[in-house]
Amino acid sequence: MGRLQQSLLILKNNPFAGRLCAVARDVELVLDNILPPRTTQLHEAMRYSVLGGGKRLRAYFTWASSQLFDVSHQDALQTAAVIELIHAYSLVHDDLPCMDNADIRRGKPSCHKAFGEATATLVGDALIPLAFQTFSSLEATPEVRLELIKELGHVIGSQGLVAGQMMDLGQEGPRSTLEDLSEQQRLKTGVLFGFAAEAGGILGNASPHERRALRSFGLLFGKSFQMVDDWLDGCGDEDAIGKPCGQDNEKFTFLNLLGPTLLYQKAEETLEEALKALSPFKERAYLLREAAVCALHRFS
Amino acid sequence: MGRLQQSLLILKNNPFAGRLCAVARDVELVLDNILPPRTTQLHEAMRYSVLGGGKRLRAYFTWASSQLFDVSHQDALQTAAVIELIHAYSLVHDDLPCMDNADIRRGKPSCHKAFGEATATLVGDALIPLAFQTFSSLEATPEVRLELIKELGHVIGSQGLVAGQMMDLGQEGPRSTLEDLSEQQRLKTGVLFGFAAEAGGILGNASPHERRALRSFGLLFGKSFQMVDDWLDGCGDEDAIGKPCGQDNEKFTFLNLLGPTLLYQKAEETLEEALKALSPFKERAYLLREAAVCALHRFS
Repeated sequence: MGRLQQSLLILKNNPFAGRLCAVARDVELVLDNILPPRTTQLHEAMRYSVLGGGKRLRAYFTWASSQLFDVSHQDALQTAAVIELIHAYSLVHDDLPCMDNADIRRGKPSCHKAFGEATATLVGDALIPLAFQTFSSLEATPEVRLELIKELGHVIGSQGLVAGQMMDLGQEGPRSTLEDLSEQQRLKTGVLFGFAAEAGGILGNASPHERRALRSFGLLFGKSFQMVDDWLDGCGDEDAIGKPCGQDNEKFTFLNLLGPTLLYQKAEETLEEALKALSPFKERAYLLREAAVCALHRFS
Repeated sequence: MGRLQQSLLILKNNPFAGRLCAVARDVELVLDNILPPRTTQLHEAMRYSVLGGGKRLRAYFTWASSQLFDVSHQDALQTAAVIELIHAYSLVHDDLPCMDNADIRRGKPSCHKAFGEATATLVGDALIPLAFQTFSSLEATPEVRLELIKELGHVIGSQGLVAGQMMDLGQEGPRSTLEDLSEQQRLKTGVLFGFAAEAGGILGNASPHERRALRSFGLLFGKSFQMVDDWLDGCGDEDAIGKPCGQDNEKFTFLNLLGPTLLYQKAEETLEEALKALSPFKERAYLLREAAVCALHRFS
């Protein structure tokens, strides 16, 4: 019996869904506080894009990794909220007509459909500085805040998230082998999961070894997550996912490269690798382990 | 004889053009170093947008304000370069079809005309984190770096630059009086000039009083600069400006509100106010004073 099958049994009595829900609620409160009040159309659109649902899985990873160290609850939640600001910006810009041209996001009109293209572009442009500004005001030492800022800049910049989006649009890089696709997805999805998991360690003054372990876990989880995403797009339930399926038929995806059976097997193997990366923390990393196994089934 | 007329006489033997040129060259070298090498289309487009000319006036303000304090040459130039990264991002996004839809910038095709709309959007998305990342790595104390980061976040966020762009697009705010337009231009142009001038003070651990004086100077200069920009658009020489004129005929501009004569007078008065804001620094602020007077004539 594979890890994914096992986890289905475990899940029946698993408190993950409750934990995820509690952290998501706390992070939503922090986001509500960080975002400017609904006084202008821009602010309305920012709140629509950030507070409009989402599993808050990346935020959960940050919170769960911070639990491995002595980190203030407030800083853990603020940092988790920053990751969600960035995730929201990337979705708003990815959905734009010149990018993926997606009308629906999280089961409702995408930002540019609801507020127009110019406003949607500016929503993203405003969320990025808000993320850095929030990091600059944490309770943590100045050195820790600067480390988070430096890493965030790297992760979402032209050699991270944005490079991944260029590749996903077919504007950059080779597009034939599994390695090409893995690199594209590492940048587009992986690095933000990697940072989400590492951020708790940065807050907690983790050793370089521990930080590497957390980042590897996040990166590998991100890869398996993307594999399942591709699988769901081809074989999943539209209502459960909150966006139309089958949109990636013509695209360079794991499903098109591997087919459903091999893809499922690869997702399992990658999850195993992700869990193995957490070995330095032994049993203490149970929150991250549980989250990875459960999240892959989208139990939230 | 008004200040602007006087300055025409002063300019004949004025070393400002040479100073601006020297600082611009140094800042270009720093930018060349900060920007990733030309290995991908995205990086190529980033370099095209940032290194493709421009007066580097904002950068000069930062350098000139840093000369009032004990600031390392390297940090002054890096900070000046950050301001130019932000200015370049804002031009790239402002030129997009969903915004001002401008085909020409600095005498050549705008970024989206040269590289496509998706790439241009992503160029802006990558320049913002690069700016914050650069601040995080200055030689200055962690506290100074964090202060720059916090202020930059505020200045370019949803209550600064982006709010100004929303208003400029007619998406937000009242659009009838001179006060409405002044507020729009304060956000769209003024705050970045204000920050450029204040940044040297932040680097130099200036007192709150000194920082306010520098910021006021930059804000007021920005206002007079925008007034002259509007005047040039209606009455200037296309070749000298590097972009087509008369594009703002239908827009809410100082020229349309005031007419050329009153606009010229208001620009003069606003420049006077800007110079007065520098009074706490007495003669020591001669670099900023000279720059403000000369730049208004676009002697560069």
